Amino acid sequence: MSTDKIPYKIYLSESEMPTAWYNLRADMKNKPAPLLNPGTGQPLTAEEMRDIFCDELVRQELDETTAYYPIPQEIQSFYKMYRPSPLVRAYCLEEKLQTPAKIYYKFEGNNTSGSHKLNSAAAQAYYARQQGLKGVTTETGAGQWGTALSMACSYFGLDCKVYMVKVSYEQKPFRREVMRTYGASVTPSPSMETEVGRKILAEHPGTTGSLGCAISEAVEVAVSNPSYRYVLGSVLNQVMLHQSVIGLETKAAMDKYGIKPDIIIGCAGGGSNLGGLIAPFMGEKLRGEADYRFIAVEPASCPSFTRGRFAYDFCDTGKICPLAKMYTLGSGFIPSPNHAGGLRFHGMSPVLSQLYHDGFMEARAEEQGDVFEAAVTFARVEGILPAPESSHAIRAAIDEALKCKETGEEKTILFGLTGTGYFDLLAYQKYNDGALSDYIPSDEDLAIGFAGLPQVPKQT
Amino acid sequence: MSTDKIPYKIYLSESEMPTAWYNLRADMKNKPAPLLNPGTGQPLTAEEMRDIFCDELVRQELDETTAYYPIPQEIQSFYKMYRPSPLVRAYCLEEKLQTPAKIYYKFEGNNTSGSHKLNSAAAQAYYARQQGLKGVTTETGAGQWGTALSMACSYFGLDCKVYMVKVSYEQKPFRREVMRTYGASVTPSPSMETEVGRKILAEHPGTTGSLGCAISEAVEVAVSNPSYRYVLGSVLNQVMLHQSVIGLETKAAMDKYGIKPDIIIGCAGGGSNLGGLIAPFMGEKLRGEADYRFIAVEPASCPSFTRGRFAYDFCDTGKICPLAKMYTLGSGFIPSPNHAGGLRFHGMSPVLSQLYHDGFMEARAEEQGDVFEAAVTFARVEGILPAPESSHAIRAAIDEALKCKETGEEKTILFGLTGTGYFDLLAYQKYNDGALSDYIPSDEDLAIGFAGLPQVPKQT
Repeated sequence: MSTDKIPYKIYLSESEMPTAWYNLRADMKNKPAPLLNPGTGQPLTAEEMRDIFCDELVRQELDETTAYYPIPQEIQSFYKMYRPSPLVRAYCLEEKLQTPAKIYYKFEGNNTSGSHKLNSAAAQAYYARQQGLKGVTTETGAGQWGTALSMACSYFGLDCKVYMVKVSYEQKPFRREVMRTYGASVTPSPSMETEVGRKILAEHPGTTGSLGCAISEAVEVAVSNPSYRYVLGSVLNQVMLHQSVIGLETKAAMDKYGIKPDIIIGCAGGGSNLGGLIAPFMGEKLRGEADYRFIAVEPASCPSFTRGRFAYDFCDTGKICPLAKMYTLGSGFIPSPNHAGGLRFHGMSPVLSQLYHDGFMEARAEEQGDVFEAAVTFARVEGILPAPESSHAIRAAIDEALKCKETGEEKTILFGLTGTGYFDLLAYQKYNDGALSDYIPSDEDLAIGFAGLPQVPKQT
Repeated sequence: MSTDKIPYKIYLSESEMPTAWYNLRADMKNKPAPLLNPGTGQPLTAEEMRDIFCDELVRQELDETTAYYPIPQEIQSFYKMYRPSPLVRAYCLEEKLQTPAKIYYKFEGNNTSGSHKLNSAAAQAYYARQQGLKGVTTETGAGQWGTALSMACSYFGLDCKVYMVKVSYEQKPFRREVMRTYGASVTPSPSMETEVGRKILAEHPGTTGSLGCAISEAVEVAVSNPSYRYVLGSVLNQVMLHQSVIGLETKAAMDKYGIKPDIIIGCAGGGSNLGGLIAPFMGEKLRGEADYRFIAVEPASCPSFTRGRFAYDFCDTGKICPLAKMYTLGSGFIPSPNHAGGLRFHGMSPVLSQLYHDGFMEARAEEQGDVFEAAVTFARVEGILPAPESSHAIRAAIDEALKCKETGEEKTILFGLTGTGYFDLLAYQKYNDGALSDYIPSDEDLAIGFAGLPQVPKQT
């Protein structure tokens, strides 16, 4: 029936694209806990944050009340290079699964960075240039964020220094070359270039790195140079704000065709895609205007939501960053290098953590064999080779669709397809060779991470 | 002025997508010369072709009169997985070049194969399945065609055997893994699996392969197995027919907005993209309804149009394929492995060859340093990291736009952006390192290829 009406891909026209970001915090009754200064244990002031972040981004980070932020014209123009992204009706996947469910995905991979990360990179680079800065520093794991930031910095004329998690640097040399092509400098992390890098290397000489380490290095370089600031591609409130463009576009496209999702699924590492995708829908739920089921999907090897603690913790391994209250495995937790699927961050967005804590969202963990199986099933019928990260969401979407097949329910499932796997072929190669193993941390492994959680005075 | 009206990206709606392919030959006064049987020197009959190609594709190959071929519904559905492709107004590139020219490009890279090749792969796999075949064989150079065919075969349930030019197999292991992910078998060519492969290896033990060698192997395997057929991603008339979907979509999008291109530019290897892009525009020109300038851009290291001969030649190095009348460097010509930019085929589409011979089209050759410089300029402002192949067209488009800057002419330039460079990062790495060299064949080098041209009785 709807086959006649709903196209395979819904593209908004450029005039229908969002002109403002949505700040989900404005509709949260229980606001996310503030960032704390690890030295004093007190909430981080705007003044303290300005050494790390651009002024405008500090304002966005702290603003819990403004519901809508107009998107500056230059960022809107940048967005038009690769947005609107398509909302795809997965007709072929539905057919393959023989499910009565209707499956939609918002595909954010149609740009060179290969993911949604560009949405926030554009904003952060723009504000850095507006402030007259010379450049920015950052970390990158799988390389999506670093690539996105390189592209944005190239466009806005900023220097870009990227600290890339060593295991990714080695496994994904081509990501490095994309960044270099866009003019960025790329350093494997931990490196000998920073104090914190030298310290980590001295303590763990064979380490393959982690996002937490790389963050420490990037922050150190930024705060020691007044014409640079640090930018981060996930976790932060400002990033959720920028990424709301994903959900706003999705909702506009669905509203246009009278589609209402029952279940909304996103993969969760630091939470940037999930937070962005669900934002306007969650807003409706918080305001009591509509109800949706939200499912966060994380890797079983780095299970922040499902096995972590809701506690104040450092965002970085080097413990030089502010403390955030979030679901965390402890900043000392480094997932096994066997894990190929991204989403390797030990913590989680404070916004999403609060929402999960308050029962507005579900979470589940998936093992990577199951995730790649879903990825290949998807690729063969929908044509897009998905990023391993995104494939966590695919796994859950397929499982929910198969449940509908059992029950006969015609649910509408929406998931976020955050990106493509074109730079993850080493992982696919392992899967193709039957050589992909996963490592699931034992309770004892997790206890080590938890033991490193900082003692923090209770906040009111 | 038009900035307000023309969006960055024009997407046709699914109902506006072409429902028939256009057969440019129907409007050609001088038809392309027929394929010849190399044994007899006589035009290849449909019967002889059926050992190599599917029946329906034989019909399409030989049909010079039917102007429009309805696209079967299942292929239309397949196309909707990744089409319509956007027609992009290159506002950012225009700004960067400070040119009064208006630049448009048709971007065919938004699919996992990363190029336009999927348009014909879908059709060829569909017809093979319709005929009840078990599978198909093919060759691939840079890997775009092999990936496209793997995707199409996976979708239509066919076995897919790919012979991949050895230098690409080694430089692009990730392409191989994409093909394997879609279920194809991939063999580096020349291989010991075929008679022709063993012969070539015996004569040239150190060879890095060529498209011509790989074609020979794939054809040998196909003709020795009755439930397989051979499929080819370029050169053939049938491929031009399928690829006309590029030009038809482009023209529909331009007509919708009242845009008329002055210059139409495409890169040229075997001619599949160029032929597809220009088809409906060239049709208008041949019918005297409109005039356009067409520019084919080829690599200086493999200059079929600009330095080749218009003569009958083998399509493959092993000399087991039919003879085609085309611009050719000789089937024995193997371009230097230094050349990273694809488009390595010694010959050229007979359709395009005839049009070029008759003066309907221009051609130019570009060196790869200049090509990569254009690629990086483009990537940094338009966001898309282009395939080296496509970047030949970018080079020419930029040069034409810069000419407009000198003269003040507000020309409208259209070029084909055939694909993305995500699997060409080794070449970009060389460029980033300043280590990209080109090898331009001397007249003596070319003479060796020409000396191998077959003697053919004059056709009437």
